[in-house]
Amino acid sequence: MTQPDLSLALSRLRQAAPLVHNITNQVVANVTANALLAIGASPAMVLAEQEVGEFVRLTAALVINLGTLTAPQRDAMLVATAAAGEAGVPWIMDPVAAGATAFRKDTALQLLARGPRVVRGNASEIMALAGQAGGGKGVDSAHRSDAAREAARQLARQSGAVVAVTGATDYVTDGTAMLAIANGHPMLTRVTGTGCTATALIGAFLGAGLDGMQAAVAGLAVLGVAAEQAAPLASGPGSFQVALLDRLYGLEGAELAGRARISPV
Amino acid sequence: MTQPDLSLALSRLRQAAPLVHNITNQVVANVTANALLAIGASPAMVLAEQEVGEFVRLTAALVINLGTLTAPQRDAMLVATAAAGEAGVPWIMDPVAAGATAFRKDTALQLLARGPRVVRGNASEIMALAGQAGGGKGVDSAHRSDAAREAARQLARQSGAVVAVTGATDYVTDGTAMLAIANGHPMLTRVTGTGCTATALIGAFLGAGLDGMQAAVAGLAVLGVAAEQAAPLASGPGSFQVALLDRLYGLEGAELAGRARISPV
Amino acid sequence: MTQPDLSLALSRLRQAAPLVHNITNQVVANVTANALLAIGASPAMVLAEQEVGEFVRLTAALVINLGTLTAPQRDAMLVATAAAGEAGVPWIMDPVAAGATAFRKDTALQLLARGPRVVRGNASEIMALAGQAGGGKGVDSAHRSDAAREAARQLARQSGAVVAVTGATDYVTDGTAMLAIANGHPMLTRVTGTGCTATALIGAFLGAGLDGMQAAVAGLAVLGVAAEQAAPLASGPGSFQVALLDRLYGLEGAELAGRARISPV
Repeated sequence: MTQPDLSLALSRLRQAAPLVHNITNQVVANVTANALLAIGASPAMVLAEQEVGEFVRLTAALVINLGTLTAPQRDAMLVATAAAGEAGVPWIMDPVAAGATAFRKDTALQLLARGPRVVRGNASEIMALAGQAGGGKGVDSAHRSDAAREAARQLARQSGAVVAVTGATDYVTDGTAMLAIANGHPMLTRVTGTGCTATALIGAFLGAGLDGMQAAVAGLAVLGVAAEQAAPLASGPGSFQVALLDRLYGLEGAELAGRARISPV
Repeated sequence: MTQPDLSLALSRLRQAAPLVHNITNQVVANVTANALLAIGASPAMVLAEQEVGEFVRLTAALVINLGTLTAPQRDAMLVATAAAGEAGVPWIMDPVAAGATAFRKDTALQLLARGPRVVRGNASEIMALAGQAGGGKGVDSAHRSDAAREAARQLARQSGAVVAVTGATDYVTDGTAMLAIANGHPMLTRVTGTGCTATALIGAFLGAGLDGMQAAVAGLAVLGVAAEQAAPLASGPGSFQVALLDRLYGLEGAELAGRARISPV
Repeated sequence: MTQPDLSLALSRLRQAAPLVHNITNQVVANVTANALLAIGASPAMVLAEQEVGEFVRLTAALVINLGTLTAPQRDAMLVATAAAGEAGVPWIMDPVAAGATAFRKDTALQLLARGPRVVRGNASEIMALAGQAGGGKGVDSAHRSDAAREAARQLARQSGAVVAVTGATDYVTDGTAMLAIANGHPMLTRVTGTGCTATALIGAFLGAGLDGMQAAVAGLAVLGVAAEQAAPLASGPGSFQVALLDRLYGLEGAELAGRARISPV
């Protein structure tokens, strides 16, 4: 598994400025739109079942996030992912709290069958989708990311999607190869929506034409490196969130490539 | 009425890291999630009628906020509060703009009958629920909090809930005893969702096992003291909001106990 | 066309503190509420079809934003704008991505027929509503604002609304006269919801009693000048957003009048 050329990936993203369609949750919609703008993509949040099928054909990538799932939103997600499949628009799923309720898990599995290019979750979410017990109760994981490496491999094989499991160390696998990304900062766990931001950034790299493995590694490395740069500028989670957007915007390719800690597992 | 040991309350909250389930409004969902993370709780925003009953049983406390009420959200709130009642999960209601429309007031009264542990509102909202005329038009109160002290006592007696009425001075009552919390800063009125943040923080203290009076006093003191610390760091409402999250995160128990101005009324 | 007295307009807004009712999108609800509070208005986000007609009669102005349109939201918008028309409450429409889908364009045209006082969009959105081809795909415009000046004039004549088309230079027209506002900063394009914020600020000036032309010019000048002041204080889009709210709050009338670059076209 060759590692992606992160500097090239970032410059491709910024040149393409891909239109990224998000059907996401109310908590993070603003934050992920701002992260996408900061890194150089063009976000759109279009939600209605009446138009998502038409809209997704205009876009470079689709991000599906189950955070504040409702029945009408589930229906819109099914329409949008079907249209994305037909139109060849790559998409990523974020199965927020997939193990917490039947409604959430059923929806996640239904979407999984539609062929996302990438699935990104925390350890509990990935374990729940892989059929392993021990899912977390809420949006925070009950497990370290290491504990979900085999579940991630298994889920990737079952689904055909690249699976990214994030935590103190992030892991990305296509079911065979696995790469670890050892960037990031604990302050990421004290701001809401940083996992969702990781998902959106991977979506932006998919929209710039990277394949699933490369997009996942690039998205997670970008967030991790920007977080490392932001943390020393911050006095707490409020100023960290501000600095994180500033660093996503200011991040240079050489810096990214130099600071990323990616290794095979 | 003994005053709560605020330092102990804060350390209990941070050790418990309670999972706090929010069915709240679109305007403040991000801000209240971040405030809950900053103080040390674990927020979740789960909204669908199909799953809130299942989900609330996993949580330590439930926060119900009527800010951007819709009919499907009202239905989900009724399911969630019924399940919370059965499972013994304490919950708090924030009756945003309860006096402004019949839909809002009817929903608030319907929820009130289900036994919230605490109700927190501004003077106009509490007066509206207590059946007194003179409610505000929007989300900002038309009255000072002092004017709603008797309405708060009356509402507490009628409902069995602890009632918190917030403003320049906050008041908390169980229908008999009343405590005043004289912390805070005028800049809190220039940032959206600070009242909702107060409600969420009280919810976190309920989730940490405090009773209604203690949780309400602790939540309001935490927000008031953090606001006093944030204000000198800010140049306006944008930087105030950032500093407020930083201070919620950095707030120490001894500081909180030393700066809180709590007195019987 | 006389230019508005911006200093007077700002002091009228701050004295009136108008209650501005927003039916807006999930991405920007928090940001626009904070911008309205920062400039001195009182925002409310009330969404349900069951109550918007009752609520809008209590307010000074209504802001309709199609960003995350859904069918229930469209229905609420139709009820609210009908009630606003009956009660004489001025309202503004922001036709986000109006050219992207049939659902969005149909809704925008249906609302346009109800008589908004002002319509504000980017070049692609205004061209789409005026029946010209070449609309943008997403929320970002595919055209410079200059290219939409004739479309804006035409749309104003067709609809009777004042039309504001925003971009590097903003243009405001009643179908005959046209004013250009040459304030602003490129960083506005790297933060989500700045167009929606412009719309909300214009709504606040409508709520303070200004006519459509004056309100549109005042709202756009306020945002542009505040952005110019915020940019040198910022290290990127995160800190720019914070500084922008601080500057909206701190902006003085004389400063605004002195820095605004308004000219007839």
